[in-house]
Amino acid sequence: MEVLQASELDAAQLRAATARPRIDFASILKTVEPIIEDVRVRGDEAVREYTLKFDRASPAAVCTPIEDLPVPDLPEEVRAAFDTARANIAAFHAAQAAPDLTLETMPGVCCSRVTRPIAAVGLYVPGGTAVLPSSALMLAVPASLAGCRTIVLATPPRPDGSIAPEVLYCARAAGVTHVLAAGGAQAVAALAWGTASVPKVHKVCGPGNQYVTAAKVALAAGEAMVAIDMPAGPSEVLVVADAGADPTHVALDLLSQAEHGPDSQAVLVALPGVDVGALVAEVAAQCDRLPRAAATRAALRHSRVVCVAGRAEALDFVEAYAPEHLIINTADAGEWVPHVASAGSVFLGRWTPESVGDYASGTNHTLPTYGYARMYSGVSLDTFTRKMTVQELTRQGLDLLGPTVATMAAVEGLEAHRRAVTCRMNGE
Amino acid sequence: MEVLQASELDAAQLRAATARPRIDFASILKTVEPIIEDVRVRGDEAVREYTLKFDRASPAAVCTPIEDLPVPDLPEEVRAAFDTARANIAAFHAAQAAPDLTLETMPGVCCSRVTRPIAAVGLYVPGGTAVLPSSALMLAVPASLAGCRTIVLATPPRPDGSIAPEVLYCARAAGVTHVLAAGGAQAVAALAWGTASVPKVHKVCGPGNQYVTAAKVALAAGEAMVAIDMPAGPSEVLVVADAGADPTHVALDLLSQAEHGPDSQAVLVALPGVDVGALVAEVAAQCDRLPRAAATRAALRHSRVVCVAGRAEALDFVEAYAPEHLIINTADAGEWVPHVASAGSVFLGRWTPESVGDYASGTNHTLPTYGYARMYSGVSLDTFTRKMTVQELTRQGLDLLGPTVATMAAVEGLEAHRRAVTCRMNGE
Repeated sequence: MEVLQASELDAAQLRAATARPRIDFASILKTVEPIIEDVRVRGDEAVREYTLKFDRASPAAVCTPIEDLPVPDLPEEVRAAFDTARANIAAFHAAQAAPDLTLETMPGVCCSRVTRPIAAVGLYVPGGTAVLPSSALMLAVPASLAGCRTIVLATPPRPDGSIAPEVLYCARAAGVTHVLAAGGAQAVAALAWGTASVPKVHKVCGPGNQYVTAAKVALAAGEAMVAIDMPAGPSEVLVVADAGADPTHVALDLLSQAEHGPDSQAVLVALPGVDVGALVAEVAAQCDRLPRAAATRAALRHSRVVCVAGRAEALDFVEAYAPEHLIINTADAGEWVPHVASAGSVFLGRWTPESVGDYASGTNHTLPTYGYARMYSGVSLDTFTRKMTVQELTRQGLDLLGPTVATMAAVEGLEAHRRAVTCRMNGE
Repeated sequence: MEVLQASELDAAQLRAATARPRIDFASILKTVEPIIEDVRVRGDEAVREYTLKFDRASPAAVCTPIEDLPVPDLPEEVRAAFDTARANIAAFHAAQAAPDLTLETMPGVCCSRVTRPIAAVGLYVPGGTAVLPSSALMLAVPASLAGCRTIVLATPPRPDGSIAPEVLYCARAAGVTHVLAAGGAQAVAALAWGTASVPKVHKVCGPGNQYVTAAKVALAAGEAMVAIDMPAGPSEVLVVADAGADPTHVALDLLSQAEHGPDSQAVLVALPGVDVGALVAEVAAQCDRLPRAAATRAALRHSRVVCVAGRAEALDFVEAYAPEHLIINTADAGEWVPHVASAGSVFLGRWTPESVGDYASGTNHTLPTYGYARMYSGVSLDTFTRKMTVQELTRQGLDLLGPTVATMAAVEGLEAHRRAVTCRMNGE
């Protein structure tokens, strides 16, 4: 881990210090676009072929209604953990529901805003190096609470063609309606276009590797009529530590991020009094004890420590970086929150490792990465709903507002707009 | 206007009846991409050249802080109309503010969600055939209420290089900080990349022609680190009318949409008892009296009347079409709302022409078109904010939740995630 002094960074060095491992979107798009087009044209057959090619698996069916899949048999302890996580996620996301809004902006001019579920959504749950039932909960719980009618979960099948029972358990418990046994760009394309077996969805959500993200972005920008939650790159954490932070805790929080893979990024912002040398050594020592030590070490190579003079400098760096996960491991953590604007999710104090939000505190772990925390929110109940406005004027309301509308329409030279109002006012 | 019977449409005919004028995105992108790249590389100089080429104008400056621009002198009546519209828009959008949320999901596990403004936003106000101060209000009022610090309004300059005083008045009144005297893809690119004179923004919002929309979509999918409100195509209305609806009112509501230009679409869903022949004749007669009769007539050529047997059939067609604007001009309009899911904004009853929402009722007129009302919301206060989650566990909270997290991390094979929790629980 490179060690930098915040006060010594010029503009170019600050840009470098807040940079992520660069993603070569152009070349990834070149790989992904033919797959998207092939799935559009050949549907399930193309999905089957890519699944055989990339995942070396031949599932019995490409997409299956969840009630036709086996009920997974899991150890009691695992089920209990999933159930606790699900309950916390459900509680926090249910509390996000926006009440319908009605306001009379002028007498007789009634405006309202109502919430509607997005009818059909696709949820991408990554596979590959890990089985990620937590992502099934993080996506399906809010989709289900929002009232989405069709909830298609896509995830790469295992070599025998089956879906990991942990993912299936969480999908079932959280209200998924269909399971698409496919991953990568082919899965995203099948969700966006629809196929003979895959219901066409209106929005695709969830984390994924660069191919998944590129497919989401390309499909949302094309003619598939599909939205996405956000473009999401490799995961990242920024840990702010003061002298009182336990070095082992800090090291393991940094490593929690790094163990996601070589593209992940862990940044430590060290306040005065932190023994940076000892902390870097602790990171290395803890890393050696991890089963994924090699990949984790690769991630650490582009990670860094930024030493700051105090809270203001730390916060400046946080804003410049805009981290997906922000851990504030300081004695006064709560006082930092009003000054943080650009982070996906924030973890406060000595007893709040990122892991709790990754799994079970109740917050969502599908978060903006790569600096997108400046303009995107993480997945929430809102992700699966849309807002519709409604207005109703009384005759008196139109008499009151009509002259304003007629004047503005005249300014804009839109005569039919003007006459639609004046003909009603004048009883034409 | 083609007249169709809903009950006689097969699946293919229904698709045709709900289709929009097709946009050839691929060819538009080919025009737009070199402009985007040129603005990235050459900045203000490129913007100047495109403005001269496309708008035949040479503004004194590409982008100007609003306090350096003249205070526009407008007739009292026009100012009053803008002020009334602004007050209604401000009232309805201020009411959309989501209160911060805090929930203890388990004892000692505190989750919260806070709202933050997006620091810098770009607002696109179309020019071309009309001056559109209403769009300045619809975008700048919520951006300003949200607390965005930098609000750059882009709009094509007039031939003398100046900004229309009506747009400038609304921009000033609503809190815009900078005015970019440019339109088209070059304006969107300047906002997304930033130039010497244009502040780089994190999100670009607002309606526009096909080049503007293509530029927004391409930039959001690329490396500019910018979000957009939505992909928005040409404007459209679907009017549902019963036998009691005044034919002149209905005709002018349809024409309000059609007069936006040849790409606009107006659809009438006629309930039993509507004299469709008379209504189509009234549309033609009213059209002849409009100053933009030729362009309006062109839009009518791909517009249609769909005759339905009753409310259920009408609602099915509404959902299949997913209109930007939905006017329900029936005696029982209020009863329809719970059954409408996919519309941008809804106008109820005899006294609520679309014009009122376009200008001054308080709802936003920047709405999803082209069927995107299935998954996008119109512009609202939310468009200019992001939500950030925060969690803080007490030591007791971690003891309670820790085993759940540790079990799930073990299932996912993420050892550092597990140890970040267990080391804290065990006092390691």
